[in-house]
Amino acid sequence: MSSERLIYLPLGGAGEIGMNAYVYGYGAPEKERLIVVDIGVAFPDMDTSPGVDLIIADIDWLVKRKDRIEAVFVTHAHEDHVGGIAHTYDRLQAPIYARKFTANITKRKMSEYNHPDDAVRIVGTFPHQVEAGPFKVGFQPISHSIPESSALVIDTPVGRIVHSGDFKVDLTPGVGEPFDPAAFEAIAKDGIKALICDSTNVFSQLPGRSEATLPEAITELVKSAEGMVVATTFASNVARVKTLAIAGAAAGRSVVLLGRAMKRMVEASVETGVLKDFPPTISPEQARDVPRENLLLLVTGSQGERRAASAQLARGKYMGLQMKEGDMFLFSSKTIPGNERGVIRIINQFSEMGVDVVDDSSGKYHVSGHANRPDIETLHDVLKPQAVIPMHGEHRHLREHVKVAEAKGLTGVLAVNGMMIDLSGNKPKVAEYIETGRTYIDGSVQIGAMDGIVRDRIRMALNGHMTITVLMDEQDEPLGDPWVDTMGLPDNGISNAPLTDVVEQDLSQWLGRAGAKILRDDKALDEGLRRVARQSSHNEIGKKPEVTVVVSRLS
Amino acid sequence: MSSERLIYLPLGGAGEIGMNAYVYGYGAPEKERLIVVDIGVAFPDMDTSPGVDLIIADIDWLVKRKDRIEAVFVTHAHEDHVGGIAHTYDRLQAPIYARKFTANITKRKMSEYNHPDDAVRIVGTFPHQVEAGPFKVGFQPISHSIPESSALVIDTPVGRIVHSGDFKVDLTPGVGEPFDPAAFEAIAKDGIKALICDSTNVFSQLPGRSEATLPEAITELVKSAEGMVVATTFASNVARVKTLAIAGAAAGRSVVLLGRAMKRMVEASVETGVLKDFPPTISPEQARDVPRENLLLLVTGSQGERRAASAQLARGKYMGLQMKEGDMFLFSSKTIPGNERGVIRIINQFSEMGVDVVDDSSGKYHVSGHANRPDIETLHDVLKPQAVIPMHGEHRHLREHVKVAEAKGLTGVLAVNGMMIDLSGNKPKVAEYIETGRTYIDGSVQIGAMDGIVRDRIRMALNGHMTITVLMDEQDEPLGDPWVDTMGLPDNGISNAPLTDVVEQDLSQWLGRAGAKILRDDKALDEGLRRVARQSSHNEIGKKPEVTVVVSRLS
Repeated sequence: MSSERLIYLPLGGAGEIGMNAYVYGYGAPEKERLIVVDIGVAFPDMDTSPGVDLIIADIDWLVKRKDRIEAVFVTHAHEDHVGGIAHTYDRLQAPIYARKFTANITKRKMSEYNHPDDAVRIVGTFPHQVEAGPFKVGFQPISHSIPESSALVIDTPVGRIVHSGDFKVDLTPGVGEPFDPAAFEAIAKDGIKALICDSTNVFSQLPGRSEATLPEAITELVKSAEGMVVATTFASNVARVKTLAIAGAAAGRSVVLLGRAMKRMVEASVETGVLKDFPPTISPEQARDVPRENLLLLVTGSQGERRAASAQLARGKYMGLQMKEGDMFLFSSKTIPGNERGVIRIINQFSEMGVDVVDDSSGKYHVSGHANRPDIETLHDVLKPQAVIPMHGEHRHLREHVKVAEAKGLTGVLAVNGMMIDLSGNKPKVAEYIETGRTYIDGSVQIGAMDGIVRDRIRMALNGHMTITVLMDEQDEPLGDPWVDTMGLPDNGISNAPLTDVVEQDLSQWLGRAGAKILRDDKALDEGLRRVARQSSHNEIGKKPEVTVVVSRLS
Repeated sequence: MSSERLIYLPLGGAGEIGMNAYVYGYGAPEKERLIVVDIGVAFPDMDTSPGVDLIIADIDWLVKRKDRIEAVFVTHAHEDHVGGIAHTYDRLQAPIYARKFTANITKRKMSEYNHPDDAVRIVGTFPHQVEAGPFKVGFQPISHSIPESSALVIDTPVGRIVHSGDFKVDLTPGVGEPFDPAAFEAIAKDGIKALICDSTNVFSQLPGRSEATLPEAITELVKSAEGMVVATTFASNVARVKTLAIAGAAAGRSVVLLGRAMKRMVEASVETGVLKDFPPTISPEQARDVPRENLLLLVTGSQGERRAASAQLARGKYMGLQMKEGDMFLFSSKTIPGNERGVIRIINQFSEMGVDVVDDSSGKYHVSGHANRPDIETLHDVLKPQAVIPMHGEHRHLREHVKVAEAKGLTGVLAVNGMMIDLSGNKPKVAEYIETGRTYIDGSVQIGAMDGIVRDRIRMALNGHMTITVLMDEQDEPLGDPWVDTMGLPDNGISNAPLTDVVEQDLSQWLGRAGAKILRDDKALDEGLRRVARQSSHNEIGKKPEVTVVVSRLS
């Protein structure tokens, strides 16, 4: 096949919520010019990725084709869309396009890693479009839980594509542009080849609620409080941060921003003009002299993150401020699945202090930033695309979203990470399966998720670790007894003798019986010692530890 | 103080949901005769207790007073109430009392650990009471999500106590006895000194629903299914298992029990007569010859546990059976907070197979086994206790439950693990603070949660592990170069040379500069090598690993 084709390839985000990274290409097969939409992060957890700092999509496929990449577009400044930009810039070296606020956040991240500031280019909104090889890409404002979120209008030689980005249908979003159905209808007037569409809330059956439904209830709640009020939400939810701050000011409270992200987001919003009329704030130092009933703290850590301001306040003093009996802590947020334990931990810590915790179980203090099922259908309806390709979802979300599309007679395409879809013809079809995966940002190093490094960490966490040292003399005979050290293992097993003694004895016996051939052979020695140590441990403590064997030869 | 006193002491369960262990005592201080109510387990997680098998309350306080323990009473057969009995029997050696079904389950556990079968004694229901030193203890049937759950009526020389056990207010529980308000009123006719009361669902504002609201919806759902139906719930929820089996039989499906717990629970229920009219079942082998639309599988693993039948089916074949596109998987259960990741993992695996997953988001296929706030109030109302002491809850639940009691003019007492409450007088007061904690069942060994063993495992999971071996000759000079091995660490750091080479070089240099005094001193050598290796690693990979140093001296 030599004719040109239009391709869509998700590298991340189609099979998980997080780690978004989508590729579009146009040209002859394996000669396509490429654009990338979003390079975000996912967050590690102890179950699957202990010790890892951040997770990004494996971009090897892109790196091998870096001379063909025209540009990277960032739909909005949430970490799962922008967090990987600075970590991949070295390898991709492509210009980055974003709107003003998003660019501000992106540039801050780029400069943290000493990347050139001017790699990030600020663009206006659609109908303005960026020319990127065969593509023209425009940023169409769409409502979400962060300012300046945008759908991308991607014009290609074979038709127009809309990439929704993250969105909700909110006509009164507080901060940022409302959802504008007429604008989308106009965009679709000559037809839409494909809509690549956010799937996060596809299982929510009722229409989503507007940000504008919150200020009254929040203001009332803050007014009713008697002690200090501490409220948390995602720092990037600037509209919410503003609502909370205004509620505080209206109740005669001085507003304090706590946590790096909170200060950075408000700063960036003010700098770029998306946030106006934010109440004056005072510093934590100033707050120490204000009576607690006149304070409202806006803090990071709505997900119970251990190092965020909320968790620090739950453990004790933070920046000289401390919560007390009669204070109120408000979660103006929901707990993302998987973060329950951390959130519950800080709620119980607050409970021990006598702090009243208000969460969103009443539904009055938080609304989601994503389109529920009826809102997803609204976007389908105004765009009437030839095909809907769900993205930004786990498999179950993508599958459900395909069903939603098909229920209204649209073509739905279930494409997970690595499935390259050919959009050229009348009906999308799978062109290729690309090997994809996850890259771990681990300290200052990037490692592959399948490299076995993290697997070894998990094994040490489950099984503990044992070091066996054996000294061999010039005649390849053991010099003295083997030496055993343990980490993460009990001192004594069922025989009540020290575990190390028991294992050392078993190793000595084995070495005594081992023939010259084994004693000369490092690999055989390693295998034998390891096997005996694991079996001996298992007999003693019911566990087979991970073992490091060090054989030192004097020869 | 030499007069006698009545004490209540939670060792587990008052500060967490799980790991229940409550003590009551009567006598002169430090001479009280004691009874224990429930010894349950909590479940480990990777975040806080990797590698651990089960968690029980630290019972050191009891062991030191074992000659004063009259008996252990088990309210019902849920793991968080009975799971620790066999693990503590050796140390407590006290007779165990339970009703027939609970005793059956307890005996099975005891015999797994070769404990005497007759340590578990079967008792009838209240008004029958067991004499245990100064106490008389009766089992009053109360509805819950397992057969034969009981509140304990504990008569003491200074009045009657009711220990609710886990309960809900269900007048039509399907299997097992309904909640009987008249019986509780009769129990309370001469006054109740204290109600020690389940707090799990205190934040649920609406009255709980009866088990009897489910069969119709479940039957309808199963009838509507076209492929194989696989349903999961807690195996111990015998009423639900029966409902699911009957729904299957009514739809012309053969019923298969999959998973050890599922078979054990049905067996115990039939043996003890609490389960009658259970539809006939077929074996997995027989099921292979039955068309899939005529099968209903009842499986373990409602919480996404990796080794349970549900997770195995999600990964592929289990016992020769396999799910396919068009099959249905029903969670007749809710996800316990903290288990979300595991449950979502299997839902996505089923989604990839094309299996339709039905969960309880509609509220039609599951009801909770615990009393909601209005139901807790019902128990308060029928018993009218002088004091309410909430148990079976995290701190936030206990605190809220105290508020509920106080709102109706009752005395509420917030007692967490280790708080010994003196119930002798007219108003409960704190008598003492006892040191409590958690014991980990880890392989075949029991270790203390604060022993540092599990902390080391967590550190290895976060930071990786490095072994340093140094050989010292007879003159206390290094013989050759230090040797570095790593586990759970990247091969190469930012200098692109192997990490082990870089660290070995830094260690060599340090050894070269170290004076004779340090080289002779094992501790100084250990500290220096460790410090250099961690700093060197940090420079290379941005991580400071856990280090084992082995210095072998030829002298």
